[in-house]
Amino acid sequence: MAEELTGNVLVAQSGGPTAVINASLAGVIEEALNHGCIEEIYGGLNGIQGILQERLIDLAEEPQQAIRGLRHTPASALGTCRYKLRKDADVERIVEVFKAHDIRYFFYIGGNDSQDTADRISKHAAASGWEMRVIGIPKTVDNDLVVTDHTPGYGSVIKNVAATVRELACDAESMGQNDLVYILEVMGRSAGWIAAGATLAKRRDYPNDPPHLIYLPEVAFETNKFLDDVSDVLKKEKYCLIVVGEGLVDTDGNYISTSSAGQDSFGHSQLGGAGDYLKGLIDQHFSGLKTRSFRPGHAQRASAVNASATDNEEAYLVGKAAVEAALNGETDKMVTLTRGDSDSYVCETGLADLSEIANGIKPLPASWINEDGVSLSYQFVKYASPLIQGEAKIPYDSGLPHFVKLGKVHVERVLPTYEIEV
Amino acid sequence: MAEELTGNVLVAQSGGPTAVINASLAGVIEEALNHGCIEEIYGGLNGIQGILQERLIDLAEEPQQAIRGLRHTPASALGTCRYKLRKDADVERIVEVFKAHDIRYFFYIGGNDSQDTADRISKHAAASGWEMRVIGIPKTVDNDLVVTDHTPGYGSVIKNVAATVRELACDAESMGQNDLVYILEVMGRSAGWIAAGATLAKRRDYPNDPPHLIYLPEVAFETNKFLDDVSDVLKKEKYCLIVVGEGLVDTDGNYISTSSAGQDSFGHSQLGGAGDYLKGLIDQHFSGLKTRSFRPGHAQRASAVNASATDNEEAYLVGKAAVEAALNGETDKMVTLTRGDSDSYVCETGLADLSEIANGIKPLPASWINEDGVSLSYQFVKYASPLIQGEAKIPYDSGLPHFVKLGKVHVERVLPTYEIEV
Repeated sequence: MAEELTGNVLVAQSGGPTAVINASLAGVIEEALNHGCIEEIYGGLNGIQGILQERLIDLAEEPQQAIRGLRHTPASALGTCRYKLRKDADVERIVEVFKAHDIRYFFYIGGNDSQDTADRISKHAAASGWEMRVIGIPKTVDNDLVVTDHTPGYGSVIKNVAATVRELACDAESMGQNDLVYILEVMGRSAGWIAAGATLAKRRDYPNDPPHLIYLPEVAFETNKFLDDVSDVLKKEKYCLIVVGEGLVDTDGNYISTSSAGQDSFGHSQLGGAGDYLKGLIDQHFSGLKTRSFRPGHAQRASAVNASATDNEEAYLVGKAAVEAALNGETDKMVTLTRGDSDSYVCETGLADLSEIANGIKPLPASWINEDGVSLSYQFVKYASPLIQGEAKIPYDSGLPHFVKLGKVHVERVLPTYEIEV
Repeated sequence: MAEELTGNVLVAQSGGPTAVINASLAGVIEEALNHGCIEEIYGGLNGIQGILQERLIDLAEEPQQAIRGLRHTPASALGTCRYKLRKDADVERIVEVFKAHDIRYFFYIGGNDSQDTADRISKHAAASGWEMRVIGIPKTVDNDLVVTDHTPGYGSVIKNVAATVRELACDAESMGQNDLVYILEVMGRSAGWIAAGATLAKRRDYPNDPPHLIYLPEVAFETNKFLDDVSDVLKKEKYCLIVVGEGLVDTDGNYISTSSAGQDSFGHSQLGGAGDYLKGLIDQHFSGLKTRSFRPGHAQRASAVNASATDNEEAYLVGKAAVEAALNGETDKMVTLTRGDSDSYVCETGLADLSEIANGIKPLPASWINEDGVSLSYQFVKYASPLIQGEAKIPYDSGLPHFVKLGKVHVERVLPTYEIEV
């Protein structure tokens, strides 16, 4: 057991929301309440952006049922940000805020950019002699963090996508007469993890089940091959159901979408439009086909109704594990998920250095993409299938999912105002 | 009790699928099995198009668990069509098919075009001396059939839309800093029934809950008012959540979408793009806003995961009621849903003449749209809220909804081939 460190907890959320990121928050809060050396449990609003501005709330003031409700409330109840540390002064300011509020435990729930942020903060705190423990908690629908077997949020988004494929397949089966093309555009900026997950909609031993074609950012898009693929499917099937990742690129590596709408503050392109682009190609090159393109967008990642119970449980566990690790004296680490070797799925938490996680990108293994370029191997299915098992039982109120909003009792500011450039 | 008419049943489905149209099919089959005067239960594939082509299947050959599974399988298990009777010969052919297969009971599950078709078939059968009973069964997500209080399929689609609004609201609340606009484009070709249903996402007594703005096809769209509306919301809220019906029109009555992709065989325009159009306006007129447009498309109407238990139950009931009505000697009628006067919701089935239903359109009452043109009155909420109550409990298999596919044992053809123009 590590030497006991008495002080306050600060937890914050960052990056794009998921269906289960609040389950991790609930895990942090509920575990923190178990330990006497933790005095106050604060939440930072809008990630480090709010911490820079000293916008903290007292999570212990929230009613217990709100904390319980977080387990089934999608997206980031504390608010999130895509703010990137811009200068050394930012890091110094954050440690000042920590000192001012006696923050000895900082938990940052986020993706790779956020783990990089946590790493920088952790190192600066150590260098400036502020004893504390910094633990990152993984989350991202993109599933692109290294070291960890998978990321909380991913199982739920692919469960949503695969269920939507099954529903759309029924719709298309009803309507199609070898003349119908449905295109579902799914999230996935730089990797095809989410698009690949759509393959789970196929029943075991039915490789011709929809989705018939999956276009991944990992496979350079070629128009002629695409048109041939569609044509081949429609010779055999009443309809062609296509899933396309929003980050599809051509053979030169350019996004095939024509509607690029600028970049976010990390320099990532804002995408949207790959599905419409494919629809346009089909409309141009075939006559007599009915082609429809669907883009649920952020509704995919926010779908608590379709969330995976396994994912939800693991998201909660990584939150608890982060607190336990910190109390064991760990710092500058991220909690990881480790899969056992046995045939039945077993998942445990581990730890990895933040610097190892930060800004790393885990690609979809090339060997999991079949040679046809539009389907996934059994290895992928074996990997992804356990992540969507079980249905998160969300509470309903008058026919609709009941989500909680935090009351947000603010902690009094004690520092001078700090200017940030958003 | 009417004179007993012995013979076979034919049931078929038409028009756009819904999440619960197969529940009506299950109701027909299960009720038909109760009556000794009904000998065979046939299904017509792809609505009247398949009947013209004598493509019938024997539903009694399907395993019982498939029929039970229909209750939770979205879209039309028999296949659907948008075929419109083109000539008198079409109607004559259908009655020939009826005679050839001793069809004495015809149940047609569909919207207003389908009820018109059923009416014409019914009248021609009577005129040609073929004794039979024709009963229409209502279905449409559009909720635009006259006489009936509402249509099966509507409750489920608005439950899906309102749940999606709640989920997107959590997502936007996480991300927004008075600079975020989410636009959800929903179905609704000629009326705003579906877009209006999004208002159910608001909690009771919280009129400022999202959706903040609902743009309905009933309210002529004006760009300046739209930009002012968005600007006003963002002065007060961290984000602006907009729901827009795909059939939005300008003050001249033209669809505001720029991507009109032709018309279907009933002369209805194929829409899609209203949401992207609104996004374009915002991007042009404001700087510094992040605007995202989402278009789940047919995934809305196919969502069994989000289906309403009330809607599912009523869809099943109208199927059973159609068989009961036919056995009571009724013909040339459609089953309707009638709402009781009491404060608590009670719904019963009734009957209306097919000719009264056929091609009628029930508009969203103008008095239910508030003066601001972007929100709905309490009367609408009172009307729509009961329709989304309860969650349909769908079966899951390995983490995904389990839907049935019919085995489709074909009935032997006995007539010469008939050419149709599709």
